[in-house]
Amino acid sequence: MKVPGFRFAAVEAGIKKRGGLDLALLVCDQASPAAAVFTRNLVRAAPVVIAEERVLSSPARAILVNAGNANACTGDLGTIAALASTRAIAEALGCPEVQVLPASTGVIGQVLPAEKIQAKAAELVAALDENGAEAFADAILTTDRWRKVATTTLDQSGLRATFLGICKGAGMIHPDVGGAGKLPQPPGPPHATMLCFVVTDVVADAALLAQCLEAATDVTFNAVSVDGDTSTNDTVIVIASGKSGVTPTAAELTQALTEVCRPLARSMVRDGEGAEHAVDITVRGLASDKDARQVAKAIATSPLVKTTIAGKDANWGRLLATAGRSGVSFQPTVASVFIDGVCICKNGLPAEASADAEASLRMKKDEYVIEVVLGTGPGRFTYTTCDLGHGYIDVNAGYRS
Amino acid sequence: MKVPGFRFAAVEAGIKKRGGLDLALLVCDQASPAAAVFTRNLVRAAPVVIAEERVLSSPARAILVNAGNANACTGDLGTIAALASTRAIAEALGCPEVQVLPASTGVIGQVLPAEKIQAKAAELVAALDENGAEAFADAILTTDRWRKVATTTLDQSGLRATFLGICKGAGMIHPDVGGAGKLPQPPGPPHATMLCFVVTDVVADAALLAQCLEAATDVTFNAVSVDGDTSTNDTVIVIASGKSGVTPTAAELTQALTEVCRPLARSMVRDGEGAEHAVDITVRGLASDKDARQVAKAIATSPLVKTTIAGKDANWGRLLATAGRSGVSFQPTVASVFIDGVCICKNGLPAEASADAEASLRMKKDEYVIEVVLGTGPGRFTYTTCDLGHGYIDVNAGYRS
Repeated sequence: MKVPGFRFAAVEAGIKKRGGLDLALLVCDQASPAAAVFTRNLVRAAPVVIAEERVLSSPARAILVNAGNANACTGDLGTIAALASTRAIAEALGCPEVQVLPASTGVIGQVLPAEKIQAKAAELVAALDENGAEAFADAILTTDRWRKVATTTLDQSGLRATFLGICKGAGMIHPDVGGAGKLPQPPGPPHATMLCFVVTDVVADAALLAQCLEAATDVTFNAVSVDGDTSTNDTVIVIASGKSGVTPTAAELTQALTEVCRPLARSMVRDGEGAEHAVDITVRGLASDKDARQVAKAIATSPLVKTTIAGKDANWGRLLATAGRSGVSFQPTVASVFIDGVCICKNGLPAEASADAEASLRMKKDEYVIEVVLGTGPGRFTYTTCDLGHGYIDVNAGYRS
Repeated sequence: MKVPGFRFAAVEAGIKKRGGLDLALLVCDQASPAAAVFTRNLVRAAPVVIAEERVLSSPARAILVNAGNANACTGDLGTIAALASTRAIAEALGCPEVQVLPASTGVIGQVLPAEKIQAKAAELVAALDENGAEAFADAILTTDRWRKVATTTLDQSGLRATFLGICKGAGMIHPDVGGAGKLPQPPGPPHATMLCFVVTDVVADAALLAQCLEAATDVTFNAVSVDGDTSTNDTVIVIASGKSGVTPTAAELTQALTEVCRPLARSMVRDGEGAEHAVDITVRGLASDKDARQVAKAIATSPLVKTTIAGKDANWGRLLATAGRSGVSFQPTVASVFIDGVCICKNGLPAEASADAEASLRMKKDEYVIEVVLGTGPGRFTYTTCDLGHGYIDVNAGYRS
């Protein structure tokens, strides 16, 4: 997992309570075009505000990430700490501060311990290695059960460009990231703490990267939910070193970024705090994709639906009831529901009795699709969600203790 | 617990899987003015559709309620079953069918076993008793842990009118009931399976009852949430026998209905499936009550906030983050948070360290207030919610099995 022009490093800086790698650095050989999308939450962490300002005003040289502390709701002290951390890295790299983008994840309301990062800056820079992506990916995890990395390639005239995406996120996951500089007015729908960094050696300027990243995140990260809660820190950044010589069109670049982001978004849901299932909620037959998205989102975030998934219970009544309160108009008497291909509700009525047992069996699978058909219109959208079980309560009822 | 003009009865009809009282009847001596509000869910159970038609076209003589089967998503067969049930009661009472209002709660997607109700109609009518309110209240429960009854009185010129409210509900609770005949176009925000029946001996016509019931439910049932999921069956009905001779103004009637509905709404939340705490989320300082309501609702339905309440963890960062994704504009740097009166966040920053421990101690109480102050505006609203803990998962991950 190498991408020409990029090196990675990770160290233990003592920020995570339980110890382990918690400080990660990603560096491009030269300052390069970059773009980012950030949480649309009105409450935004210090690193989000700083990274946004910087990515809009300068090419990027490095991304500094810490886990264990979100540096959110920390006021001026939080801003000072984030600035001091990135300054230490800029000095160690010998680059302008504005080229170092910060990102943080962890507990809200505690100021980032900048001195721990300053103390590790030289060690971190010394450890940079083109093969360091996995250590970087491990260091940014919080409640995640596994490392999240995805790659794709883009071939053009005998040249090959590589995309490497590294992601974290398992709780407070309902991303709603939007283009830098355009937010948060008006605030959009919810997201949560997910961080994702994509490095690539395609040739692309910041404007093209921004346009394609927004399109890719809208159908990947912005279409998954663990718990419907949008974080103060959600951040997706892409940097393009240009080393491959491949010059993609907007469509090609959007496609490649989507290919990298989709498995990462899915991996987050699959790793949803305490989750055992990742389920695609596909809603179709409505007038527009927008309507389908609204219904799919309501179902994907319904506690009753999510406990039904945990219980492997083909309770289609809860699915229809949730669709019915989503705010989108449809005729309940034409609604059908399929679980992993088994029709359990047709024209708003129960399917044959045997379907129920068969569907419940299918719900034991790690991953499957619930399809809700609400008419004959062309609108469709898929939201990916997970189950709400005892594991989620275990993780969240005492997160800080 | 008697109200002049009303009698009650309850029997075991074999509708609930686990047995026990599950069929209840409430009868007024004469057909009397009545009003109702019903779920704004687009998917509406057969009894909701029938009760709505009837209450808009006729005075009411009786309310027939069954628990264990919601008769929702049951199509024409469900309608036929609901009509057959109320016909049996009308025949036993000797009144027109249109004067019998049905209500159902329980599993969605199974047709109501009308024959079990027909078989018990005579027994039910024979058992009617002016002291039967408690048996009625017991028979309508499903996952509830306790009976929900409240009363109030209204004095006027030496006369006294009585209000008796009987309610059920513990899960799929996020009521969004609205006036009969005005729905569901456009569908509003969510509610859930709650049933509430208020009987009173005030003198009031159906129009006055409808106006005051809508006002009272908007600040009581429509301001509580267990799980954010609105039921297909939510129903609140009021019948006024007129026997007291008390003729209330609209303000007096709204006040009395609110006094009856508020403790019932609170009791539902306190009894939220698996819940151990009922918490008032008061949001103030915004431009309007509407804005405050939107923020309070987002906080009251956030899984992360609700697990925080279960964990007795004064995690104010989650509260602010949820406010930030609610879609309402405010300045995070002026936000303050109080838990049971303890300030744990001031101007968007942590209060002194000792506050955290004190607030966590207060969170052990069964009931308390979380106050979120987001500015200096006059807008305020209180939403009541409960914790999301292991109990909710136990109840819901295998409800039908």
